[in-house]
Amino acid sequence: MSSNKDERPNGRYLPKSELSLDIPSNFPAYHGSSDFIINDTPDESCVTSSSNWCKTTVKKIFSRKTLYKRLPILTWLPKYNSQDAIGDLVAGITVGLTVIPQALAYAGIANLPAAYGLYGSFLGCFIYIFLGSSKDVPVGPTAIAALLVAQTAQGIWQRAVLLTFFTGIIEVLMGVLQLGFLIDFVSGPVSAGFTSAVSLIILTSQMKDIFGIKTTGSTFLDMWISIINNINNIRIGDTLLGFGCIVVLLGMRLMVNIQIGPKETKEKSWWQKIITNTIWLIGTARNAVLVVVCGAIGAYVVNEDYFLLIGDIPAGMPNFQPPPFSIGSVVENGTIIQQEESFSEMVSNLGSGLIVVPLISLLENMAVVTTFANGKPADATQELIAVGVANIANSFVQGFRGNGALARGAVNNASGVRTPLGNLYTGVLVIVALLYFTPYFYFIPKAALAAIIIAAVIFMIQYRVVKPMWRSKKTDLIPGLAAFFACLVLPLQIGILVGIGINIVFILYHAARPKLRVERLTTTDGINYIMLTPDRCIIFPSVEFVRSVINKQGMKTTLPVVVDCTHIYGADYTAAKVVATMIQDFESRKQKIYFYNLKLSVAQVFGGVTPDIIQLYDMTALEAELRDNA
Amino acid sequence: MSSNKDERPNGRYLPKSELSLDIPSNFPAYHGSSDFIINDTPDESCVTSSSNWCKTTVKKIFSRKTLYKRLPILTWLPKYNSQDAIGDLVAGITVGLTVIPQALAYAGIANLPAAYGLYGSFLGCFIYIFLGSSKDVPVGPTAIAALLVAQTAQGIWQRAVLLTFFTGIIEVLMGVLQLGFLIDFVSGPVSAGFTSAVSLIILTSQMKDIFGIKTTGSTFLDMWISIINNINNIRIGDTLLGFGCIVVLLGMRLMVNIQIGPKETKEKSWWQKIITNTIWLIGTARNAVLVVVCGAIGAYVVNEDYFLLIGDIPAGMPNFQPPPFSIGSVVENGTIIQQEESFSEMVSNLGSGLIVVPLISLLENMAVVTTFANGKPADATQELIAVGVANIANSFVQGFRGNGALARGAVNNASGVRTPLGNLYTGVLVIVALLYFTPYFYFIPKAALAAIIIAAVIFMIQYRVVKPMWRSKKTDLIPGLAAFFACLVLPLQIGILVGIGINIVFILYHAARPKLRVERLTTTDGINYIMLTPDRCIIFPSVEFVRSVINKQGMKTTLPVVVDCTHIYGADYTAAKVVATMIQDFESRKQKIYFYNLKLSVAQVFGGVTPDIIQLYDMTALEAELRDNA
Repeated sequence: MSSNKDERPNGRYLPKSELSLDIPSNFPAYHGSSDFIINDTPDESCVTSSSNWCKTTVKKIFSRKTLYKRLPILTWLPKYNSQDAIGDLVAGITVGLTVIPQALAYAGIANLPAAYGLYGSFLGCFIYIFLGSSKDVPVGPTAIAALLVAQTAQGIWQRAVLLTFFTGIIEVLMGVLQLGFLIDFVSGPVSAGFTSAVSLIILTSQMKDIFGIKTTGSTFLDMWISIINNINNIRIGDTLLGFGCIVVLLGMRLMVNIQIGPKETKEKSWWQKIITNTIWLIGTARNAVLVVVCGAIGAYVVNEDYFLLIGDIPAGMPNFQPPPFSIGSVVENGTIIQQEESFSEMVSNLGSGLIVVPLISLLENMAVVTTFANGKPADATQELIAVGVANIANSFVQGFRGNGALARGAVNNASGVRTPLGNLYTGVLVIVALLYFTPYFYFIPKAALAAIIIAAVIFMIQYRVVKPMWRSKKTDLIPGLAAFFACLVLPLQIGILVGIGINIVFILYHAARPKLRVERLTTTDGINYIMLTPDRCIIFPSVEFVRSVINKQGMKTTLPVVVDCTHIYGADYTAAKVVATMIQDFESRKQKIYFYNLKLSVAQVFGGVTPDIIQLYDMTALEAELRDNA
Repeated sequence: MSSNKDERPNGRYLPKSELSLDIPSNFPAYHGSSDFIINDTPDESCVTSSSNWCKTTVKKIFSRKTLYKRLPILTWLPKYNSQDAIGDLVAGITVGLTVIPQALAYAGIANLPAAYGLYGSFLGCFIYIFLGSSKDVPVGPTAIAALLVAQTAQGIWQRAVLLTFFTGIIEVLMGVLQLGFLIDFVSGPVSAGFTSAVSLIILTSQMKDIFGIKTTGSTFLDMWISIINNINNIRIGDTLLGFGCIVVLLGMRLMVNIQIGPKETKEKSWWQKIITNTIWLIGTARNAVLVVVCGAIGAYVVNEDYFLLIGDIPAGMPNFQPPPFSIGSVVENGTIIQQEESFSEMVSNLGSGLIVVPLISLLENMAVVTTFANGKPADATQELIAVGVANIANSFVQGFRGNGALARGAVNNASGVRTPLGNLYTGVLVIVALLYFTPYFYFIPKAALAAIIIAAVIFMIQYRVVKPMWRSKKTDLIPGLAAFFACLVLPLQIGILVGIGINIVFILYHAARPKLRVERLTTTDGINYIMLTPDRCIIFPSVEFVRSVINKQGMKTTLPVVVDCTHIYGADYTAAKVVATMIQDFESRKQKIYFYNLKLSVAQVFGGVTPDIIQLYDMTALEAELRDNA
């Protein structure tokens, strides 16, 4: 890099004559840290070049590269081979066997009839084949999404479907505007706290089906109080079945790791392979196995009142129709069981859910993508568009929200999925279930579905992160625990915002209070001076603080003060003003102040306000300057 | 600094054995940037030592040093001499001559009877003598505070006085809790935008008195529309007097700089000195001169309807009584002219003013303190306490809010003030005015007071900062202009929050998108490697971005990658997790990744999650490592 040019993030070179400051043209390079930092990622330009950002964005939208990026199927389909086909078929069917019972169960979390879960599990899969960037994401209802739907739609299916529609549109918009970076503001601790709280709430909400009772209230505490109040109404049959199913599921979960014969697959005989794979398949499809077995039991004892069953599910495919933009009133036996609701009332009822649901959904989806990407860069923008369009489509078949879920993604990956085409078989399986199996779903006990949910969500309680967090950075526990407790006692949307808010306060405090190292140094000529090294960028929340520290150090002595600006990679107008005042402060005390190793970009910011700043770029020049003024 | 100890911000040394990581005990010092940064300001500890912060704060509250800090009079009074006394007397009386007309005028901005301005101009001055840390701050009503009072109290004096009381208490609390740093989040551009908008609004609000008309509306636009609608009702006498007074005041303002005879004071003869000083005094006390002259004219033509006069001001001192905690209804001629209002209704009407008013007031006050401090550190905590107590006292004599104002501070400083005792004479002068002069105030034309305000606020419109801001950092204009326009069209409290909010988004974006330098380097043995240098701290909003850049660079090549961590002065749990994943990504590609020059504190954070991170601390070791693995 030539030393008399300022390399800007937008790639434009600024000749020396354009600069307002006189920079020595031969100041030597300083290893590893003193050069101007260049931005090697033109995609993500910094704030200063926002107009440029607009231009490049517009240009990028209409290029051939963009087409391949936005339609990932163009990349993998031409290279599709028979091995891919086998992998996708096996994985697609395995995931389908997981999705069907999950869809029925998660509809319960969402406080909707079971059919809506299935309605949201096929069309989105087909869309994702064309738009999805990750082979491992099976689009479908998830536990977290279901709970958010429950809190936002409050059990009214029209609101849930409208939420699917609008959040899909918002996701596409976020993708187009490249707002995927927003999830970066959800830190690991906040995300862990949120997920743990969600798991506990879901677990609590399912206890009523395990115990076979009716509960009131929707918060964590209210639900437990209601369960304790209803303790005398607990039904023995449901409770035994529920806890029994949980134990069986946790046991079957271990089957996935069972190996028959030698450990290496290559060394196994053909029957060892078949048995190992069968055990693995039963373990993986444990939810489907459980549902079939319990459904059979339910059908056998249907005339006894042992278990509460999920009951009628309308047979056949849902209607293809636009999402409901208003709700008509429903009157039954002369009383209004549902109020009329206009479009604007529906939207205002969805409220902050319209922002928080896409954000959480993206977070959940990207967790699947990055977990199985093996370090390949994940494309948040494309995932936003793919999941967004999938949800818009789902809203036309009355499905509730879906996206990739980590547990299902793991099944997909372990089943050897190779392209997003796996989604095809999953979708087809759900359609088959809708067309032919719905009459049999009648007999599934509610307690069995609740057990499936509980056996899944207990593994989402992230108690394990507390120890490494404590070892790594203790203060990170604060936003994590805050998010956890806030999500337990407040609506989820508010809870996660509380966690994010606390985290942002940490960043701001961090920006406001840099650390300064103070050293008393001596030149080779024996001249003493004070070296002050701020450790980061000087922007407005920190400047008054830095000025007061520098002045305080300066007033303790009459020695010249050198400010080492090596770590100052950015500054703003407020900083420039304060530096100007600081230079005046020193002048009024007849004390010298030098700025050592000031980056060109920062020097320009300072120079806009104070042209008379003394800059030095190497130790020899600094020592000469100190000697001349001694 | 010894190389096998980690010097913590709280001053505790951590022996090597306590560290979870193995650090080479002899890694060499790296000049100027690679050592662990120590925090040389134990008062302002970083986030990691928040428990420690509590302890030191409690300890500090009960020390002798604190007593002297919290009662600054103990420091300067014992050393008080006759020169101090003369300086303070002259300055106090000069400021008094400015304060009295200002107090009458600012009460008009606050939409209150003129007397309330005088009531807020004496007791606070006496309090400030004991608690104030700056000689230059004369406590009294200011234009900005008056406008905020107008918007918050809406012309009801009980609310204004309660606002004075509560904001005083909040200021004291903010002082005790050391929340003075909050004003650091108001950047130069936002502050300039806010002040300019306030000036324009105040100017607009005074036009009705200049034109002698009645206007409706309180926003900038509404007021101008109302003026244009009332254009036929403009009174010639008031308009001529108003504009005449503005011209006279602007002319007299220049008198301050007039010098008779030689430029140096020492070379002047005694009569030259007297004439120069007299001209300076008349120029400085121009508001008082104008009020006296215009009052005399008003009294002379009182029977003609030339000018609207300010009318009756109750004579004598205000009652000493607690601030009103509720409002009784006022009925006049059978109609209710004021609704009854309970305590809670009053408080909820004050609303966000309770937070914003102390914040703006502190900002205004600290501007005075720092402008004339000549680089001495300013104590925001003490100023909060002093101004807070002064306002609590003022609320007992029905005064409206006051604090230091820049214009009056400049008069004080130029008049040669030496200690806060100058406030004594100002306060006494206001009391004399209340006791003996109020009957004469009746004759002051409203247009003259409006002219005083306008001639002052036009210098607060900060159009001059635009050019240096443009030269220094163009993007800083965005929050500045946003604050300006938001304050013009929205309530001031909301307007300034909009500006601050936009600025915070800039900081967050800055935290989320660090720059990375990418270099292809060669060791002395001819081994190529990639050196990646992130330019700042790695915390949660930026980690996924950094990981994706590093992975992208890593996948372009099979060369080993070295991450230069010189500039990474901080990290959190989320960063540690992502670094752990990144190391796995590289392992799965069988590519080497090294961390060069990792600070101990950061190494500890990373080590809590990944103990197997490869750290190197000097070039020789790095080259050896690269050679061994080549």
